[in-house]
Amino acid sequence: MTTQLTPPASTSAPASPGVEAPAPGASAAELVARRRKGYSLEGDFYTSQEVYDLDVDVVFSKNWIFVAAAAEIPEAGDFVTVDVGKASVIVVRDDDDEIAAFHNVCRHRGSRLLEDKGFVGNIVCPYHRWTYALDGSLLHAESQPPTFDKTCFSLRKVHVRNLAGLVFICLAPEAPADFDEVAKIVEPHLLPYQLDKAKVARQVDLPEAGNWKLVMENNRECYHCDGHPELISAYFPIFAYDEEDITPRLKPLYDRYTKAADALAEKRREQGTPLADHMQLDTRQVGFQLTHLPLDGEGKSFAANGAAVCSKLIGEVKDAAFGDLSLHMQPNSWFHFLGDHAVVFSVMPTSPSTSVLRTTWLVHPDAEEGVDYDLEALCTVWNATNDQDRVLVTNTQIGCSDPSYVPGPYSMVEDQVEGFVNWYVTRLREHLGVEATA
Amino acid sequence: MTTQLTPPASTSAPASPGVEAPAPGASAAELVARRRKGYSLEGDFYTSQEVYDLDVDVVFSKNWIFVAAAAEIPEAGDFVTVDVGKASVIVVRDDDDEIAAFHNVCRHRGSRLLEDKGFVGNIVCPYHRWTYALDGSLLHAESQPPTFDKTCFSLRKVHVRNLAGLVFICLAPEAPADFDEVAKIVEPHLLPYQLDKAKVARQVDLPEAGNWKLVMENNRECYHCDGHPELISAYFPIFAYDEEDITPRLKPLYDRYTKAADALAEKRREQGTPLADHMQLDTRQVGFQLTHLPLDGEGKSFAANGAAVCSKLIGEVKDAAFGDLSLHMQPNSWFHFLGDHAVVFSVMPTSPSTSVLRTTWLVHPDAEEGVDYDLEALCTVWNATNDQDRVLVTNTQIGCSDPSYVPGPYSMVEDQVEGFVNWYVTRLREHLGVEATA
Amino acid sequence: MTTQLTPPASTSAPASPGVEAPAPGASAAELVARRRKGYSLEGDFYTSQEVYDLDVDVVFSKNWIFVAAAAEIPEAGDFVTVDVGKASVIVVRDDDDEIAAFHNVCRHRGSRLLEDKGFVGNIVCPYHRWTYALDGSLLHAESQPPTFDKTCFSLRKVHVRNLAGLVFICLAPEAPADFDEVAKIVEPHLLPYQLDKAKVARQVDLPEAGNWKLVMENNRECYHCDGHPELISAYFPIFAYDEEDITPRLKPLYDRYTKAADALAEKRREQGTPLADHMQLDTRQVGFQLTHLPLDGEGKSFAANGAAVCSKLIGEVKDAAFGDLSLHMQPNSWFHFLGDHAVVFSVMPTSPSTSVLRTTWLVHPDAEEGVDYDLEALCTVWNATNDQDRVLVTNTQIGCSDPSYVPGPYSMVEDQVEGFVNWYVTRLREHLGVEATA
Repeated sequence: MTTQLTPPASTSAPASPGVEAPAPGASAAELVARRRKGYSLEGDFYTSQEVYDLDVDVVFSKNWIFVAAAAEIPEAGDFVTVDVGKASVIVVRDDDDEIAAFHNVCRHRGSRLLEDKGFVGNIVCPYHRWTYALDGSLLHAESQPPTFDKTCFSLRKVHVRNLAGLVFICLAPEAPADFDEVAKIVEPHLLPYQLDKAKVARQVDLPEAGNWKLVMENNRECYHCDGHPELISAYFPIFAYDEEDITPRLKPLYDRYTKAADALAEKRREQGTPLADHMQLDTRQVGFQLTHLPLDGEGKSFAANGAAVCSKLIGEVKDAAFGDLSLHMQPNSWFHFLGDHAVVFSVMPTSPSTSVLRTTWLVHPDAEEGVDYDLEALCTVWNATNDQDRVLVTNTQIGCSDPSYVPGPYSMVEDQVEGFVNWYVTRLREHLGVEATA
Repeated sequence: MTTQLTPPASTSAPASPGVEAPAPGASAAELVARRRKGYSLEGDFYTSQEVYDLDVDVVFSKNWIFVAAAAEIPEAGDFVTVDVGKASVIVVRDDDDEIAAFHNVCRHRGSRLLEDKGFVGNIVCPYHRWTYALDGSLLHAESQPPTFDKTCFSLRKVHVRNLAGLVFICLAPEAPADFDEVAKIVEPHLLPYQLDKAKVARQVDLPEAGNWKLVMENNRECYHCDGHPELISAYFPIFAYDEEDITPRLKPLYDRYTKAADALAEKRREQGTPLADHMQLDTRQVGFQLTHLPLDGEGKSFAANGAAVCSKLIGEVKDAAFGDLSLHMQPNSWFHFLGDHAVVFSVMPTSPSTSVLRTTWLVHPDAEEGVDYDLEALCTVWNATNDQDRVLVTNTQIGCSDPSYVPGPYSMVEDQVEGFVNWYVTRLREHLGVEATA
Repeated sequence: MTTQLTPPASTSAPASPGVEAPAPGASAAELVARRRKGYSLEGDFYTSQEVYDLDVDVVFSKNWIFVAAAAEIPEAGDFVTVDVGKASVIVVRDDDDEIAAFHNVCRHRGSRLLEDKGFVGNIVCPYHRWTYALDGSLLHAESQPPTFDKTCFSLRKVHVRNLAGLVFICLAPEAPADFDEVAKIVEPHLLPYQLDKAKVARQVDLPEAGNWKLVMENNRECYHCDGHPELISAYFPIFAYDEEDITPRLKPLYDRYTKAADALAEKRREQGTPLADHMQLDTRQVGFQLTHLPLDGEGKSFAANGAAVCSKLIGEVKDAAFGDLSLHMQPNSWFHFLGDHAVVFSVMPTSPSTSVLRTTWLVHPDAEEGVDYDLEALCTVWNATNDQDRVLVTNTQIGCSDPSYVPGPYSMVEDQVEGFVNWYVTRLREHLGVEATA
């Protein structure tokens, strides 16, 4: 008989010195107070109902959030609905061709008014036919007593801004004032793309099995980009490198990159649009980042070797090799503007452990599917990238829910993740009146 | 370039003066105290777990609730089971032909005893074969010590009443005493229909994506009946009109209605049954409402133009044009009794945001499917109506869950909704010892 | 008209004297304090989130739990993952052929590392490629600053023991010390079966719609075994009888049983393995029970009439009629070792009302499917038995959730259920610092 008795073994703690999972069940106030700079967030940030409710009530309701491309509602009466937690908002093109926003709730007994997206003349409640104009005023309600005052029952308004074709809303009574300052910086960069007049080529909603912050953090770094073969083929593989990182072997590549960057700057100067990058992710309430990146190969778009994916250039862009203008707006959106199309992203929370990523591809209004672009080819890179990221987010949500998870240190190339997290923690600290203790 | 910069916009509160969503997260006691008369309930009534638990523990467990037609269990040993929250009750015809009710839980280790409906000789636990008689007494349990006293382990009884063929139960130790007074009023109206001897033609359970109160409130008004083309075809379209609402254009219709009402009264007098309506929705604990309505066209039943749906009249009814006797019993049921059939409804809560509507069609015991009635035709109107209402309830559940929902005023034709809500709020106020503050 | 008015009926409490459901919503501390000896547990033990969290955090995290057969990971790099509540543990055969266990969470940003089971050279995080050796040490992490110290970011270790081929883990910093004492008692009994070298013939995960304790309690008694025709065909039908229970009619059967038991004892003596039974279910922290049972008919295995299901005997067993060595280890496992195969069971909690039963069949490493055994035949008895028990557990979970459930008395043949419950309640009392009050 060869099986041996188990050797006597120590029953003391396994040797992982100095590693202790944070005490579970901390309040949101404790969590934001003790957040350690340079380290990933504690797991409760991604799993607790209290934090989720704060994310919806504070981060998503007291800040400007990106919800739609104006191109989705080109005509008066066109509307989309947007869910923010349990709130639903109607974003509608009104009779003056302006974009208005209302709570999607009847003022009678609360029925939901409109679903999904579409076109309406008036907004009519499906329950008892209360009828509202596109400016939200109540036009008609049957069987009311003489004392009934229609003017008291308009739809409740929501703040809305159209930033060069990108629609932002804010649910709070007082919206953050510095949106206008940021708009002044950002808007001139976007004008060549004429997004307000663009055509929506496709929109995809991707359910994510992860907290919305994991989706955002994932987007804020390319430390994991080995897993995105389609995406990185258009980028110079020295993304985020400092000059001192350029070894002799990398020098030819670096020279190519420098030349492409210079050419791009020249083109934007010719087109009369600004060149400067902006990095204000955590230095203001309407945090944002704006970066001009040249692309590798043909330098035009996200296809292999930087080839274009639409033969008709977007807006008033005059040269296909117009680089990648990348914009990130706190808390929930990022954007890529290229010579031939734009692709815009929003992330919406749906529960502590789930969210939805909406991706919208925009092209020139005259671009024809099958003629100027192939729809599948247009969307290949980001459909693939989003799906690859979805798996990573799922894995991280599961891992962060594990009671043994301990926050780890960010590497040198995760500074924008830190920027996102700093902005986020600052918002909660302000709201909760909490000082940092770590 | 034509795109304009966003015009500077005010960041102050959108103009919805005087509209403020109630503070969220109120306790049930606060909610019932501040309920405003004449206005729909706050959203938390339809979403909070605390309110739901009270609804189950107070409204559905301390009041008489309608659970079955006696015709569902015609023979000794026939049983149905009924879920009330997490409780299950066996309603069984016992060996004396009386209806008995027991908790559906084994007195040994708690196994569920019976599922759904069926026939049993004794009630035998599927786990360890403990065997109970139809009067609930424990007949047999294996492997017990000599000290074991079977008489201590009878099934736990539940109050039950058979009101002219309608079975009500009450889970509380003390059931509301005024059920008998109400039964004395209601029962003579029901005798012609002989429900205890009726035949069940069909039973349908419809899952609702809404709180049980929304299903009841929906049934308490016809303000939304434009959405029920099948249902309203049999009714006079001046339902709930006062005489002063009758315009010259409506006069011929009104005269037809008056004539039909008089004829109906005469027929009920001939049949020897009472004529009076009763409206006691919120003036007693066993709240109810009983109304005699003539039908339009042939005046017989729910088919188009008031035609009959069963050629054999129900019970001892002598004339097919016997009108619609409509009964509502707080908190969870309504009934329509016609010359050719009856249809009975119960609503059971299953979660804050879901419930089940059970509809049962009853006909004369000798009526034969395919000969005296076509089953689809018999059920057409209420299957269609229930499904139309299901969509409205779903929309209202979603809208009432929106944090921006504010209770709105009832119209002049929603007085029975107010009657339901008053009764409901009174029950919770009594239970919680809370006075009205609004 | 024959229908009678409802007779006046008492509205007082139904007659179930002395039966009162325990007050709902008790804390775990109250529940364990008032637990009544000899009676089944109160319903809240099977439904409350607080109790479930304690079950995971105390019962499953501070005790040794059975998680795998060592035969599942025969080679270095073979691993399985195990979920304990929200924690996941990697159990891996390391390069020294020892079994190691680590938390399945990356030390960077918390991604889950490995899924399900498989083989790895190193453990590589799918997110940013942090790479760990099979001893848990961090081998490589990209883009780190010079201050980064890899030795601080090893995988976190988990206690692990290999008891003669059965793998147990303990998540607590300090594991219960008496595991080694128990191992000394148990291991000699298991040596003939050589489980560490066995082959896994099949593994089945069965989701249970019941609390894990109901699954365990169900396994601890044969009071319900009438419902297991496949299982009981191999056992003597006087299981758990005392000598005084042997009536003259049972005497021939009893004599056959006695003869089989004596023959089995002789065979174990010849094989040089111990004979004694051990019943320590609730008398120590590492509670266990070990029983040698002869089988009826051919006396070999679980097929009809006690026939064998594998022609190659397991391990070093020399005689097919080697009886059934039955082992139970608190809190979550039981085992049957027969002459021709072994079958091992673990129960893991997944929510208050759900759990997973894992069953693994082991045979001699040289036994060939289709030659030495038919896979379906090997698994017939326990697949059928598990499924039959699953229905019973489901019914009991539903019934125990009913507010009218009252704990009932255990019969004379449910003493091992009491042993399981005592052990369990003792663990919670110790943890909560609570004395018994009942």
